[in-house]
Amino acid sequence: MSHPYNRFAGQSLERLHALSDGVFAVAMTLLVLDLRVPVQVEDSSQRLWGALAKLGPSFAAYLLSFTMLGTFWLAQHTLLDLCARVDRNLSWFHVGFLFVVTLLPFSATLLAEYITVPLAVGLYWLNIFLLGVALAVSSGYISRARLLNELDVIKLTIFRRRIVFSQLAYGIAALICLLNTYASVAALAAVQLYFIVSPHVPILDRLLNPGITDV
Amino acid sequence: MSHPYNRFAGQSLERLHALSDGVFAVAMTLLVLDLRVPVQVEDSSQRLWGALAKLGPSFAAYLLSFTMLGTFWLAQHTLLDLCARVDRNLSWFHVGFLFVVTLLPFSATLLAEYITVPLAVGLYWLNIFLLGVALAVSSGYISRARLLNELDVIKLTIFRRRIVFSQLAYGIAALICLLNTYASVAALAAVQLYFIVSPHVPILDRLLNPGITDV
Amino acid sequence: MSHPYNRFAGQSLERLHALSDGVFAVAMTLLVLDLRVPVQVEDSSQRLWGALAKLGPSFAAYLLSFTMLGTFWLAQHTLLDLCARVDRNLSWFHVGFLFVVTLLPFSATLLAEYITVPLAVGLYWLNIFLLGVALAVSSGYISRARLLNELDVIKLTIFRRRIVFSQLAYGIAALICLLNTYASVAALAAVQLYFIVSPHVPILDRLLNPGITDV
Amino acid sequence: MSHPYNRFAGQSLERLHALSDGVFAVAMTLLVLDLRVPVQVEDSSQRLWGALAKLGPSFAAYLLSFTMLGTFWLAQHTLLDLCARVDRNLSWFHVGFLFVVTLLPFSATLLAEYITVPLAVGLYWLNIFLLGVALAVSSGYISRARLLNELDVIKLTIFRRRIVFSQLAYGIAALICLLNTYASVAALAAVQLYFIVSPHVPILDRLLNPGITDV
Repeated sequence: MSHPYNRFAGQSLERLHALSDGVFAVAMTLLVLDLRVPVQVEDSSQRLWGALAKLGPSFAAYLLSFTMLGTFWLAQHTLLDLCARVDRNLSWFHVGFLFVVTLLPFSATLLAEYITVPLAVGLYWLNIFLLGVALAVSSGYISRARLLNELDVIKLTIFRRRIVFSQLAYGIAALICLLNTYASVAALAAVQLYFIVSPHVPILDRLLNPGITDV
Repeated sequence: MSHPYNRFAGQSLERLHALSDGVFAVAMTLLVLDLRVPVQVEDSSQRLWGALAKLGPSFAAYLLSFTMLGTFWLAQHTLLDLCARVDRNLSWFHVGFLFVVTLLPFSATLLAEYITVPLAVGLYWLNIFLLGVALAVSSGYISRARLLNELDVIKLTIFRRRIVFSQLAYGIAALICLLNTYASVAALAAVQLYFIVSPHVPILDRLLNPGITDV
Repeated sequence: MSHPYNRFAGQSLERLHALSDGVFAVAMTLLVLDLRVPVQVEDSSQRLWGALAKLGPSFAAYLLSFTMLGTFWLAQHTLLDLCARVDRNLSWFHVGFLFVVTLLPFSATLLAEYITVPLAVGLYWLNIFLLGVALAVSSGYISRARLLNELDVIKLTIFRRRIVFSQLAYGIAALICLLNTYASVAALAAVQLYFIVSPHVPILDRLLNPGITDV
Repeated sequence: MSHPYNRFAGQSLERLHALSDGVFAVAMTLLVLDLRVPVQVEDSSQRLWGALAKLGPSFAAYLLSFTMLGTFWLAQHTLLDLCARVDRNLSWFHVGFLFVVTLLPFSATLLAEYITVPLAVGLYWLNIFLLGVALAVSSGYISRARLLNELDVIKLTIFRRRIVFSQLAYGIAALICLLNTYASVAALAAVQLYFIVSPHVPILDRLLNPGITDV
């Protein structure tokens, strides 16, 4: 039996959606602050182009991190939409998830500034990993605490397999940083692109979707 | 046939609206950070006025960019309101659109700092162009994927003609930067003003509205 | 007759509320960035207190501006709640209003840095004045364009008288800056406090409320 | 009898929720700006690790402040959900509450920079205390002004006892700063953790919940 307070606190799915949308919106927009306009360049298009070209790694980190946030924004709301209701614990799991979301602008800046240092790639990966862990823990709690819509059991299974599979892919991509950090970031981007485009790969389709023909 | 996951992920029109409102709200407010309060000016109204006058280009870029964001905010929500439902792909097109939205504060700062450099005007135009492309691609997908409200076919046609027409106008205004960058920015502002006020110009009205008297 | 496009663009009261809440939330929170933590103070409570005391004007400008934003946030939503529907023009009036809202963090910083300069007080007042103008223009348009709920005619009259009265009060408070800028800011704060507490002053009550006993 | 204006201004519970979610989202995300990526470190994982280790106090202050904001976000919405309606005064109490919320990023930075100075811990505590005061005042007003849902009288009592109890705990933790500031911050974190996990402690359960078996 839970505390009486916990029976009426943090019950609002709508508020959790709203706070999450807000945090994602701010985090996504803060990423741009990392693109600093070059100062004191001579006033010619050629010189300015030269100065802007140096922003390449920052821009790549920005694009990668933005799509990463987009992916997890979609994933979080997909998960929350499977819930018939929320409770105070689930609210806290998602506040924890949002904490990791707000760390991404920091990790992205670190990656952009130290693109050649394996530790920077490793910490960036850790951030992605923690996002996955938070969603996995949260999806596990949703089953245990019977917060799930009865009709959505299969959807939750698909969701959880997808997290495990994507984290495996991110993990392998991140490991490449021990050989070459640029190749590792490129691999992370490729994994990211795969999940956005989500092309049909029969063997993966069978693995990720537990024996269903239609949801 | 799409992935089972894609059949329940990213289906929420409400969430897409909420994230978009959030990103626009933050991007619009971040623009003001470009107006930096002058430091170490002697404490007299006259001296302060002199220092503030130097913020002229920043203020102009801020005003122009704010109304630009206002225009595309209105356009995006008008487009989304024509949809009966959204799917995961449409959600991703709009995350892409929002990425370009978050770039505008950067482009605006670049324009303000290098108002005399054609490249700065060119990149600012590119940003506007990509906003238009994202909406055009997204509106094309809405037709193809049958996400449109049945009654709104004509509205979508009007919407798409408007994008093409406005992008033509922005493009011509931007080309002027090869002659004079100030004139080019003024032309962009004039185009912007035209779309905000939207006065009646019979020849344009006929061109933009495909043979209808009432929607 | 308006453009066909304008008949379906910018019709959403809900979106206008959401963008406004977002802009106000960001602007209110950005104000705190003006309170900069003192650097390189020796590590004793006494020294730190001395350094923090210098933030006094910044803190006062922050508190004043925050309540100012609170006032106009309440006023805008009160106005929008009187509308049966919105159109594209009203959406643009409110985008204009939000532009002036995003200027307030700049004006507040200017006031904090140049508290002794009449021009800084004057520009701060101009910002408040433009907020009032935007709401007045917007409330005028609401009547003319028949966007008003039929039952709310008297409420709109009360709303408009309140704007005129409050702007008179702010204007007089601002004029004091020609004598003493500190007194002027104190007067602005007093006016602000009057509107928050809104005590009963019979003569003002009669003036502001057009001959009604109950709304 | 209140002013006619006050009878239709600030009546929207939905707007108050939305502004609050926005302010919390921005404040939570701004906290990360305090984690500054080290500059000019030699490009090796070892050196970077050394530089990052110095961010320890900042990271701790960030984590503590984020969960603090999470706690008060949950508390505020729990309180507002007990209301059948809001009025202009309650709106203002919550604007005041949000003001204190926006102060937390400042207090957190101060704590991180001056972790050894009792005054910094004291001001951080003052911020938490004011958050509690704002909610207490607001919950008192909700009873007096008959804004409460009739069925939620007991819930409000539980809510108020919880505020008093948690403020006592925060206060005792803060007092430790007179002996040792690190121990004081650790105590604050422990109190925080207690409220997040909310384990069953029979004696506290009886004290906090006024003789009820089921709500």
